[in-house]
Amino acid sequence: MSSWEINSKELIDNREEFLESIFTIGNGYMAVRGFDSFKPKKSYEQCTYIAGLFDYYEKPYTDMVNTPNYLISSLYIDNNLVNFDNITIKEKTQVLQMKKVMLDNKYILELENGYQLELKEEKFLSIFDKHTVCVRYSIKSLNFSGLLGFETGINCNVSNKIIHDDQTKDDIGEYKFLDIDEINRKNNCISIKLNTRKTGYSLVEAFTCISDGIMPTMKSCDQYEALKFECQLNDGETKTFTKYISIYTSRDVVENEKDNLIDVSIDALQNSISMGYEILLKEHIDKYNDIWNISNISISGDKNTEKKLRYNILQLIMNNACDNSNVNIGARGLTHGRYKGCYFWDTEIFMLPFYLYTNVEAAKNLLLYRYNTLNDARNNALEQNVLGARYPWMCTIDGNEQCDTWDIGFSEIHITADIAYAVQHYYEATGDLEFIENYGLEILIETARYWCSRFTYDKDNDCYNLLWVKGPNEYGGVTVNNTYTVKMACYNIKKAIEWIDFFNKNNKKIIDQLVNKISITKEELRVFNDVTKKVVILYDNDKQLYIEDEHFMQMEPINLKDVKVNDSALYNKICFDRLQRYQVVKQADILLLMLLLPQDFNEKQKLVAWEFYEPITTHDSSLSFATHAQIGARIGKTKEAIDYFNKSISLDYDNVMNNTHKEGIHIGASGASWQSIICGFAGIYVCNGQINVEPNIPKQWGEVNFKLYLKGSLLEFTISSKEINIELIEGKCIDINVLGNKRSLSINDPIKIFLN
Amino acid sequence: MSSWEINSKELIDNREEFLESIFTIGNGYMAVRGFDSFKPKKSYEQCTYIAGLFDYYEKPYTDMVNTPNYLISSLYIDNNLVNFDNITIKEKTQVLQMKKVMLDNKYILELENGYQLELKEEKFLSIFDKHTVCVRYSIKSLNFSGLLGFETGINCNVSNKIIHDDQTKDDIGEYKFLDIDEINRKNNCISIKLNTRKTGYSLVEAFTCISDGIMPTMKSCDQYEALKFECQLNDGETKTFTKYISIYTSRDVVENEKDNLIDVSIDALQNSISMGYEILLKEHIDKYNDIWNISNISISGDKNTEKKLRYNILQLIMNNACDNSNVNIGARGLTHGRYKGCYFWDTEIFMLPFYLYTNVEAAKNLLLYRYNTLNDARNNALEQNVLGARYPWMCTIDGNEQCDTWDIGFSEIHITADIAYAVQHYYEATGDLEFIENYGLEILIETARYWCSRFTYDKDNDCYNLLWVKGPNEYGGVTVNNTYTVKMACYNIKKAIEWIDFFNKNNKKIIDQLVNKISITKEELRVFNDVTKKVVILYDNDKQLYIEDEHFMQMEPINLKDVKVNDSALYNKICFDRLQRYQVVKQADILLLMLLLPQDFNEKQKLVAWEFYEPITTHDSSLSFATHAQIGARIGKTKEAIDYFNKSISLDYDNVMNNTHKEGIHIGASGASWQSIICGFAGIYVCNGQINVEPNIPKQWGEVNFKLYLKGSLLEFTISSKEINIELIEGKCIDINVLGNKRSLSINDPIKIFLN
Repeated sequence: MSSWEINSKELIDNREEFLESIFTIGNGYMAVRGFDSFKPKKSYEQCTYIAGLFDYYEKPYTDMVNTPNYLISSLYIDNNLVNFDNITIKEKTQVLQMKKVMLDNKYILELENGYQLELKEEKFLSIFDKHTVCVRYSIKSLNFSGLLGFETGINCNVSNKIIHDDQTKDDIGEYKFLDIDEINRKNNCISIKLNTRKTGYSLVEAFTCISDGIMPTMKSCDQYEALKFECQLNDGETKTFTKYISIYTSRDVVENEKDNLIDVSIDALQNSISMGYEILLKEHIDKYNDIWNISNISISGDKNTEKKLRYNILQLIMNNACDNSNVNIGARGLTHGRYKGCYFWDTEIFMLPFYLYTNVEAAKNLLLYRYNTLNDARNNALEQNVLGARYPWMCTIDGNEQCDTWDIGFSEIHITADIAYAVQHYYEATGDLEFIENYGLEILIETARYWCSRFTYDKDNDCYNLLWVKGPNEYGGVTVNNTYTVKMACYNIKKAIEWIDFFNKNNKKIIDQLVNKISITKEELRVFNDVTKKVVILYDNDKQLYIEDEHFMQMEPINLKDVKVNDSALYNKICFDRLQRYQVVKQADILLLMLLLPQDFNEKQKLVAWEFYEPITTHDSSLSFATHAQIGARIGKTKEAIDYFNKSISLDYDNVMNNTHKEGIHIGASGASWQSIICGFAGIYVCNGQINVEPNIPKQWGEVNFKLYLKGSLLEFTISSKEINIELIEGKCIDINVLGNKRSLSINDPIKIFLN
Repeated sequence: MSSWEINSKELIDNREEFLESIFTIGNGYMAVRGFDSFKPKKSYEQCTYIAGLFDYYEKPYTDMVNTPNYLISSLYIDNNLVNFDNITIKEKTQVLQMKKVMLDNKYILELENGYQLELKEEKFLSIFDKHTVCVRYSIKSLNFSGLLGFETGINCNVSNKIIHDDQTKDDIGEYKFLDIDEINRKNNCISIKLNTRKTGYSLVEAFTCISDGIMPTMKSCDQYEALKFECQLNDGETKTFTKYISIYTSRDVVENEKDNLIDVSIDALQNSISMGYEILLKEHIDKYNDIWNISNISISGDKNTEKKLRYNILQLIMNNACDNSNVNIGARGLTHGRYKGCYFWDTEIFMLPFYLYTNVEAAKNLLLYRYNTLNDARNNALEQNVLGARYPWMCTIDGNEQCDTWDIGFSEIHITADIAYAVQHYYEATGDLEFIENYGLEILIETARYWCSRFTYDKDNDCYNLLWVKGPNEYGGVTVNNTYTVKMACYNIKKAIEWIDFFNKNNKKIIDQLVNKISITKEELRVFNDVTKKVVILYDNDKQLYIEDEHFMQMEPINLKDVKVNDSALYNKICFDRLQRYQVVKQADILLLMLLLPQDFNEKQKLVAWEFYEPITTHDSSLSFATHAQIGARIGKTKEAIDYFNKSISLDYDNVMNNTHKEGIHIGASGASWQSIICGFAGIYVCNGQINVEPNIPKQWGEVNFKLYLKGSLLEFTISSKEINIELIEGKCIDINVLGNKRSLSINDPIKIFLN
């Protein structure tokens, strides 16, 4: 099979909800899970999501709203409904065409009377016009002649089954967020306007369906609107129906269009009809060709790995509203309601690099989302009686905390430093100084300010402790001086200091404006400096081992092999509270830190950390495998790195953690997978503003080829275990450290290095 | 005014909900808040509770069910309803007769037309027959003649307003737990059977009302059943109505009566009617005379203090179902739905001593409740992947954890040691060896077993750490080696070892039976011993200061005077998360430990601890004042002790913490108040099985007189600043350490000591 296609037949899990997760398709603005359009479903099982469309189920807590099912369809033969729950489905195939980002469903059906039908549904959520969905249905009689009825519509009787973000808690229950406000039916175009109950957003969905020479009738009942076609279907004959759907929310339009959303949707629908399916599809494919031209990674020697990796890249593309700075990416993107659609540090630390290096605008918009919620972050700090800006562990429509537990929501504060880190990373990767001037500096200063008031000064020991904090290793208790958090917080503060210094010297106006807006005093800068010098970094000098936190060495050692039998999370077997006293690591903590701040650790320290932490890591977060792959590739643990990489890219494809079916796609892991090949095996990373290339490509992969934007220039890399080739495709000349040697890359002077 | 009466006129707060809390009356089986029976109320504002009657609002979480309002009544004059929301209430007085435990409400009403009425309602919840309530209404015309209508009934349209136990969370909402199953109306006796929705309990409430020569009519509508009387009322004339109510639940009767609850209630009602109000009242008063004879404390020189203290003692009596080992006492008793009626460590550490020394059966039943829930505690341990039995932080109908937060529910584990401590305390106070044999030993061993698996062995330092634990000071974070918890856990393990040793020598059969049931190995006993020797006790040798936990000295010092302006809790002003990094103490932690284990600390250490912790204690728990009074009295901080004592006994009476109105009565503080006078000022405490008397009675109190049961004997104490008098009232001779000298007390040989 092509490495550009995923066929349901090749998957090892064939549970319906797993296939629905795997075959979710989206265009960043919206997504639809890969459910059977013809099969009766519960109201919370027909899931389609729109980026940023949330509603409160109980203020201040939101859920990502499940929107109407615009795929719902029914077949009738000789006026009898073909009930997918009763008939024989002789064959069902789902094929995700990754290049075109289309989902093709094909069924061979056999009715009780022996009639056989072939049913095809091919659909795409246009990347060219993100408000448009096109579906083409083909129905073929295989052995009979009779009366065909085809009905297709929109089902607004959908609901959410709210899933508590705390794994130990039960689901919150079923909840309906959308109420119909208005329905417009005209010329076989039906447009439905719905409103969210508490956030007050409007959503319109308009659709029509066309079939040569057959006129439909309109049908309307109980939040369901449809068109029904009836015609003779002869043995061997195929009938085709083309459905166009147009979707808008009040969040997408300017103020004066909000009241005319129905008109907006009908205009768009008319436009789709006049363009027609073929042209719409062509525009869609062309746009995706452009995207893949930059984002694709080819692995000449391992098409299976290439394909799984490609599936991960596709997730990063499909789940990001790249042109919108008012949304971010949920931990499961738009593929599932798990974590209530909330945005986590997953974005900045695990996904952002993909966008940073392939779609700078998308990366910028993700960070602008954080700038746009800076005031909420300030408010969070205020409510927590600290200074500056404190980003929420989980958030959605604004920067208000969506996590309601102390041990997680109040204690996993590293996210604030992670965002600051991403701001700096953005600058170093893109060279976009204006971003720092207009947005980044303010974020860096307000977050540095937060950290300085979050540390507690210990007079007796003249040091600053970070009390009651949880690091990335969520099994580590609410602890003290978590090294990851302390070091990242220090980096945050140092970057604030450095940029203040830089602008004081180079563009004093920027500082003056900020002093005016948020006031920065000399005393404050003294404290900034003091904190960075006097935090507690736990390090065992003899062993050259960085210690995770003050209590990690007091934990009870345990042999992981005795308790962890597969890749299912250990907390399913041992309760969270107990795990917190075992010397185990849920996910990379110190090792992740070493990837983020490579300059702060020498090779020996990285090796020591790997030897100590890797054997006791449970990888109970989907973010852990790829992090291990990445650092493993960088420190020469190649075999282990490949194993971890394979697990990470297969995470959803092979349902490695046995939760893709009930949680959706792990987009953070997709981002981390991308990093593990680019930053790990290809060894490309930016450090102190300098681009480094230190590859360690497994021999069996042959040539790995990909493009990256670096500091505004587009570069193409072709790397194998034997050669490094770097070409400048567009943009200005650029300096690169290849294997520690500074090289200058220009259009006419590609880099070619042979390896031993 | 008498020190046996509380009159609403003397109270400084006159908000309705405050008076409702203060004038709650109960008989241990049930209680009714002091609301106006004639005033329209919301369904969750007419609160009557029955001990042990809980229902799930969301499994496994329960709430204490608000039961039907059997006081609801209405007046009609000339067929017009007298609406208490509209008319002029010229006078309203509520008088709690503490000796008789009756509440007398009196109103002078003036209608729009100038008619004036005097309305009296006197009621008691019989202590003699705990299923019976009697209410006598007297209605007098002060200036008119007209047609009087008096209607009285039961309102089943009641609900709960569920209050989340986490102060930082919003209320859960309104919830109706009881549905009517059956109504029986016969001979003016109406009996209503209701069922809880999820726990499946039945409740019947039967009532009738009698008035000389007037026959009522029956009225029934919308979950409301009533009797209505109509008669001529002449100027100056008084009409009297006597209402009898009989209340049973399926929890109170044997299996074969459960289906006949209506018959049970009607029989009881008939019995009440035949006895009549006067006899029922006499039996009630006689029984209370007996109780007060043992429980009263008189303070000859300070009747105001005596009265407030008495009010606290009354709470301890009224809120304890002393003859029932299947219920315990909620943190607000039966006076309010706060904390969902849950039972906490408040019982064992703060309330139990009162019962231990005045009503041994009640004390035994409270501990039997813990024995009866031992299997649930074992199950909690199992679920938390530890051994033995782990008592829940909060519980109700069984031993399942009702607290759903990690930082509290999973981390405030000291309750398990507190219960074990209470078992030992029970033995030392009563000498009841059979209790240890049949129940206590099993609790002590299973809890010791829990502790040994809850500590984490640190091989490098050959010690056991207690990781992630919250002590009584809930502002201290989820910390490490909280001294209170470590010491109490050690005490628990030591007592298990000692008793095993004792029975091995004296009654091997007991051990053999237990080995058979729960298996106790030599290796286990070795670990028990090892743990007690190698726990970490944080102590500053130079300062002779016991340190609260491993991070307390890293906290930020703060001047409490700068932030705490009155006795309202600081968490109303500074968020919980921030408080956890200030060097403040929410409530006595180390100081409480010093009271519980006085033998483990010398006088100097107690004084040092007071000097260090007292100034930084916020007393944001109602349990803190009295603890400080008690230790203050013992270590000679008399002035401070008196101040704290006064705050504690006034806590509800003067609404000191400004939450009695919205939370009900603080029964734990009542118990702590009792301890602070008996164990603090009178200085009577049992230590290592020895009774000690070391009084420090303030001069202004004159003679303090009270009785106590000690090791099965009843003693009467009369102590002043000048004299100690101890008499043996009944029981066998007893040895007492008075001021460090061993004295033998017998019937004919009282102890009398003059003090300087």
